[in-house]
Amino acid sequence: AILAAIDAALKIGPLKGRHVLVTSGPTHEPIDPVRYIANRSSGAQGAAIGAALAALGADVTFVTGPAEVPPPLGVRVVRVDTAAEMLAACEAALPADAAICAAAVADWRVEGASGQKLKKAPGALPQLQLAENPDILARLSAPGPRRPRLVIGFAAETERVAEHATAKRERKGCDWILANDVSPGTGIMGGTENAVTLITGAGAEDWPRMTKAEVARKLASRLAEALEEGADASGGSI
Amino acid sequence: AILAAIDAALKIGPLKGRHVLVTSGPTHEPIDPVRYIANRSSGAQGAAIGAALAALGADVTFVTGPAEVPPPLGVRVVRVDTAAEMLAACEAALPADAAICAAAVADWRVEGASGQKLKKAPGALPQLQLAENPDILARLSAPGPRRPRLVIGFAAETERVAEHATAKRERKGCDWILANDVSPGTGIMGGTENAVTLITGAGAEDWPRMTKAEVARKLASRLAEALEEGADASGGSI
Repeated sequence: AILAAIDAALKIGPLKGRHVLVTSGPTHEPIDPVRYIANRSSGAQGAAIGAALAALGADVTFVTGPAEVPPPLGVRVVRVDTAAEMLAACEAALPADAAICAAAVADWRVEGASGQKLKKAPGALPQLQLAENPDILARLSAPGPRRPRLVIGFAAETERVAEHATAKRERKGCDWILANDVSPGTGIMGGTENAVTLITGAGAEDWPRMTKAEVARKLASRLAEALEEGADASGGSI
Repeated sequence: AILAAIDAALKIGPLKGRHVLVTSGPTHEPIDPVRYIANRSSGAQGAAIGAALAALGADVTFVTGPAEVPPPLGVRVVRVDTAAEMLAACEAALPADAAICAAAVADWRVEGASGQKLKKAPGALPQLQLAENPDILARLSAPGPRRPRLVIGFAAETERVAEHATAKRERKGCDWILANDVSPGTGIMGGTENAVTLITGAGAEDWPRMTKAEVARKLASRLAEALEEGADASGGSI
């Protein structure tokens, strides 16, 4: 960690001069002042990616929800709670050469969250009216002058991983998807290892099971190559 | 912490030979494999109470949800996720001389939680059908041969704290309620200090603002006195 911090401070490596935006951790969507809806996400994979990018010399903006794992050294940390706050922080961080959306953003928030604690009344159950959250990956992937050249999303799936992730890549308009199988029993959610499939315009590429730190280093290295090639999102080679 | 562990191991102090059940932390109620409903609770107050009881020589069973703060040394730790699991763990821990329910238990769970990740479909919002969770404090307070002699609940309120907490004491059938004001802005939720009001059969007693560790020591000391007096729940002096 100390070496990584020194490397980042000295800004050497293949990502020197590149600004990379990373989102990490869960978001918490309030129901009332004491209750919220959350996603299971330790923030471990996002933190590892931030560290790997910083180690390659990148200037990293690390937008993180309330994660269990502390943010890495050598990055600019922006702390948020909700998906709406995360989107605002990402948009404020642009322009960026690349964006990696590793956060497990809540798809829904509670419409009209209560400012007072909901009281339990016998036989009366609160109706949680859900509303769709902004889609941060799709927003960052939308064509335009501020679009990062390389936008990478994550897909946490529990079934037909490559198929769902390939469809997600098309739907979101991002360049790559790193898909993982978070079925209970794989031990990936909250664990130290990850088994991912990288989905690009060229197809699906299964990576062997490795630690989250190794996944992060491999992704950072692939990202550096892709930016080096100077390919843009419309060029098809990313 | 080391002295506390030694004290607990040697089992000296006014609570020597007493078994105290403590619940702590939030519960997480699954929506699907990756989403859940939670309460904001760091587990700091519960952990401090467990430590204070152990320091007075008590034999502590510490039933904890997924808290941020680690459980104290010198207690028997039982880890759970949901309210249903917490109730089962508490019932399995009986008999006990006293029970302190410091956990922020979710009032509701999601009925028929999905075994697969809910997919986001455009324009379609999931309906979360809520069901009432078992009321652990009320269950432990119910009269019967296995009722602990002293059952203490917590109330986290955002308005009319003493009034709501006094009503809660009646409703639950517990002996004492330690009420605190968790309004945003007090800095109590997730902070190191607490401002509590102790509600007993004799009325409401405001404690000065103090650290959670001091609240815990004061509560443990009052609990030791009450058990010493040998008063039972029906005697009115508790």
